[in-house]
Amino acid sequence: MLSSVKRLLIGRPLKSTALGEQKLNIFKALAILSSDALSSVAYGTEQILLVLATIGAIAYWYSVPIAIGVLFLLAALILSYRQIIFSYPNGGGAYLVSKENLGLTAGLIAGGSLLVDYILTVAVSVSAGTDAITSALPGLHPYNVFIACILVILITILNLRGLTESATILAYPVYLFVIALFILIGTGAFKILTGHVHAGTHISIGTPVQGITLFLLLRAFASGCSALTGVEAISNAIPNFKDPAPNNAAKTLILMGSLLALLFSGITFMAYYYGISPKANETVVSQIAKGTFGRGYLYFFVQGTTALILVLAANTGYSAFPLLAYNLAKDKYMPRMFTIRGDRLGYSNGIVSLGVASIVLIIAFGGQTEQLIPLYAVGVFIPFTLSQTGMILKWIREKPARWIAKLTANLIGAIITFTVLVIFFITKFGQVWSVLIFLPLIVILFQRIYTHYNAVGEQLRIDPDHPAVKIEGNVIIVPVAGITKVVENSINYAKSLTDQVIAVYVSFDRDDEKKFEEKWQKWRPDVRLVTIHSHYRSVLQPLRKFIDIVEHKASESNYRVTVLIPQFMTKKNWHYILHNQSSLLIRTYLLYKKKVIVATLPYQFKK
Amino acid sequence: MLSSVKRLLIGRPLKSTALGEQKLNIFKALAILSSDALSSVAYGTEQILLVLATIGAIAYWYSVPIAIGVLFLLAALILSYRQIIFSYPNGGGAYLVSKENLGLTAGLIAGGSLLVDYILTVAVSVSAGTDAITSALPGLHPYNVFIACILVILITILNLRGLTESATILAYPVYLFVIALFILIGTGAFKILTGHVHAGTHISIGTPVQGITLFLLLRAFASGCSALTGVEAISNAIPNFKDPAPNNAAKTLILMGSLLALLFSGITFMAYYYGISPKANETVVSQIAKGTFGRGYLYFFVQGTTALILVLAANTGYSAFPLLAYNLAKDKYMPRMFTIRGDRLGYSNGIVSLGVASIVLIIAFGGQTEQLIPLYAVGVFIPFTLSQTGMILKWIREKPARWIAKLTANLIGAIITFTVLVIFFITKFGQVWSVLIFLPLIVILFQRIYTHYNAVGEQLRIDPDHPAVKIEGNVIIVPVAGITKVVENSINYAKSLTDQVIAVYVSFDRDDEKKFEEKWQKWRPDVRLVTIHSHYRSVLQPLRKFIDIVEHKASESNYRVTVLIPQFMTKKNWHYILHNQSSLLIRTYLLYKKKVIVATLPYQFKK
Repeated sequence: MLSSVKRLLIGRPLKSTALGEQKLNIFKALAILSSDALSSVAYGTEQILLVLATIGAIAYWYSVPIAIGVLFLLAALILSYRQIIFSYPNGGGAYLVSKENLGLTAGLIAGGSLLVDYILTVAVSVSAGTDAITSALPGLHPYNVFIACILVILITILNLRGLTESATILAYPVYLFVIALFILIGTGAFKILTGHVHAGTHISIGTPVQGITLFLLLRAFASGCSALTGVEAISNAIPNFKDPAPNNAAKTLILMGSLLALLFSGITFMAYYYGISPKANETVVSQIAKGTFGRGYLYFFVQGTTALILVLAANTGYSAFPLLAYNLAKDKYMPRMFTIRGDRLGYSNGIVSLGVASIVLIIAFGGQTEQLIPLYAVGVFIPFTLSQTGMILKWIREKPARWIAKLTANLIGAIITFTVLVIFFITKFGQVWSVLIFLPLIVILFQRIYTHYNAVGEQLRIDPDHPAVKIEGNVIIVPVAGITKVVENSINYAKSLTDQVIAVYVSFDRDDEKKFEEKWQKWRPDVRLVTIHSHYRSVLQPLRKFIDIVEHKASESNYRVTVLIPQFMTKKNWHYILHNQSSLLIRTYLLYKKKVIVATLPYQFKK
Repeated sequence: MLSSVKRLLIGRPLKSTALGEQKLNIFKALAILSSDALSSVAYGTEQILLVLATIGAIAYWYSVPIAIGVLFLLAALILSYRQIIFSYPNGGGAYLVSKENLGLTAGLIAGGSLLVDYILTVAVSVSAGTDAITSALPGLHPYNVFIACILVILITILNLRGLTESATILAYPVYLFVIALFILIGTGAFKILTGHVHAGTHISIGTPVQGITLFLLLRAFASGCSALTGVEAISNAIPNFKDPAPNNAAKTLILMGSLLALLFSGITFMAYYYGISPKANETVVSQIAKGTFGRGYLYFFVQGTTALILVLAANTGYSAFPLLAYNLAKDKYMPRMFTIRGDRLGYSNGIVSLGVASIVLIIAFGGQTEQLIPLYAVGVFIPFTLSQTGMILKWIREKPARWIAKLTANLIGAIITFTVLVIFFITKFGQVWSVLIFLPLIVILFQRIYTHYNAVGEQLRIDPDHPAVKIEGNVIIVPVAGITKVVENSINYAKSLTDQVIAVYVSFDRDDEKKFEEKWQKWRPDVRLVTIHSHYRSVLQPLRKFIDIVEHKASESNYRVTVLIPQFMTKKNWHYILHNQSSLLIRTYLLYKKKVIVATLPYQFKK
């Protein structure tokens, strides 16, 4: 039953050799990997205006130079990530680049930071998308958290179905969003050029503004940089591309950068030209769309695709998180299970963990995840800075052809991203301080896991100089509760393996004990029976003590002790709860507490 | 860790011989077994007035004759339950009486009805108590469900600690409530007699009332009968009494009946004399107390102890449910686990099941369990009627000394309880119809469980004419994933049991397969290695197929197949999640799906 539900949701398992078919072409990769970056267009401009609004409408013209600064940073990031793609064609992005060039700790910081960031991406973007949906349908507002969780589950299932399938489904909304914004910007540009828009509504660039400070401008710039989150996703996901993977990834990166630049500058300029103020209950993009189209079909087309892409931005996390977790797990910094491909060839454990973690975040914050946005931006700029710095050191060390140009690109990238990071910490410390606590904790956890796996590897290595002690024989203990077919079955099985079989009977009263001993003598005089009286109605404690004694004696003569426990297999599932409570208890207890070998003998009921 | 938390909450385990010390004297038994019945004083009168209020204040005088009717029914019930106690000194109440005298189905109906009823008792009374608390502290109102669940958990823990301990703690609030009500009634009577209370506020008994119908009066009577729930608890719990148990139980019953009669008639008469109308936001008892004391200390004393006893009424369910479940389980109508005494000699499984079920009810109804009250009254009157009828048949069959008098007592009881039951179904069918569905379902479930246990017993019986087939030998399959100490350990263990050891290696690529085979040949040429190629990255499927083949061959020559699976025992608990996922999966799968013998070999890490 369970497995057919799984089949229905996830699809039939794919052969390992089908891996190639699951790879992405540029068209699908752009859809699946750029949704996070492109969706930031929906709020990037607004973030800048919100900071400037603290001075007043007169300061809005600063959004244009700030946006130019953001575009400049974007160009530097795209250029330097392009270099990373070709230098690290197997993916891994900031983690690998930092680890190789700056050392292990830097790598783990970058990796841990990104892992947490992808969880935040999912939580924040799904919550934002849910808000957009419930703003349109206010009746659903009380169910915000529930809807967000359902959306996360749907995206998780989509990703478990496999890359190409989710890419096919996701391509439509992403491209529809791009088309919607192009129509918006194109129509807006046409109206501005033909003089349909009143030019008097905006303040001229360069108008002096009273009370403006460098701090405020930097804060606005840092807020605008939140539009750049998601840029690194492609460099983490190169192995998902069709061959030649690095070339295809680089092309996708350039395409994404260009789209992002065009849309972001278009929206920012229109917001400036229309003289738009950020409002509490209407987004900047909605105001622009209303100003351009009125509340017609095209307005709702822009709004609908915006809501969709906000939800789908989560998907970028789903592509990048499992691969990053795979890389960390391969290097023994995360549990081994993250290296295993599931039925549909995705790293299912990573996908499911990401889904569960973001649902936990959404529930913990009651769907109010906006507070996490600054944290999430910082979580991106730490690996940005580390990987750029790593690339600088790489060029200095390797000095390939045209290394000065390459170094310059990464140097500019490093300086800007580091500056943005510093600005974040200075201007929004109250919201981002927790990074300073949880990042070190994650790095320590990574290292602990590594130490453990290494210690295990060493302990498991066979040492030819110290061969294992020879096992001289076996004792099998069979706890019995009566004389039944199950007991007969168990005793016969034990007898077929060794002569040293001991049946143990725990009694709760003395009369019963005697009676049972007599009965046993008649039935199987060839098998030794030990009866133990229990004062506490517990079978476990007396059994434990008895096993201790037997084990002590056995170890002296290199005998192994096995406890044989029957398990009833019922014909109907619901019958199961009518049995097996004690065998489950005994088995678990012996295995975890006593460390004896436990053999489970199934006994099949016929009705 | 877990076990020390358990010790802290529940207390140290008690020896089986300490059972006698856990028994109740009359003082404690009254506290623990009468809280349900006595608490109904807090709402019984109000239930009658609420029905009469639909006609108007002029009809309130009917509450006095109706209360007399209820008192008459109470006397009949007490008398006939006294007879049940002496006839069935081992307890079991309605279930045993009905089963023995009316047949199995009647017994199961009575038992199932009471079991559900005790769950309702806990849910309803804890919700009512929580309402009383949050009415006093309105700030807590949004946390009603949470508080109710915490209270259920506390009462469950108290009961897991054992009978005498919970009796000691519960005695205070029960007796305080009784004292509070006696002070209230005493002061009220004094004021009435000394003429401090205006007599003009009430309508004289016998005043003709327009629009009154028999239906309405019957409905008011049925509502008043809800004050009688909980009367049967003592007859179910006789084994909990100190010796001579039946005598002590009978004395407790009479005491409880007298207290209940005094308090109920006192409250009802005062309500009538004060001319009190039921109000939505103030209880009748609160109005009487305010009228008698004003809002002073004594008023709050009455209110506080009332809230307490409403919560503690739940405890009656905790005494009776586990004993009833024990009786049903002993007769194989419920899972065997309900017959096992826990650390503190209570039937812990019954106690915990009751707690869990009532929490589920409270959460499902969002704490609004008032709707369950009629259901709960019907659930009591079904076993009332059945046990009275059973007693009638018993007297007719056995004809002991003074059987006519005994028969008369039970006959009156049977007629009245049956009448009340019919009134319930006629006047409140909309609220109680579900009984007609779930009771038959429960009875069917009981019978299914019985059939299953019997079938199992038969299947387990050893048949000397058909001895088990002799086991000729053993094959042990050891799945291996590499050449490590764990594998060495497993192979050595398997070899010490049989010569037929097969190591199985599942490979995901062909090169690796070859390499491993060569390595194995060098390492253990004495152990046969089988390698299987997996197309789907699954270890389970190829392993399953291989085991199928081996099993098929083995069964032909009466060999047994055992699969040996290593289990890593980590030094630190958190390390556990870094291992064992596949062994757990394989073990569970083989045990439940393949029905082969699975032996688990623990391997202890040293660091």
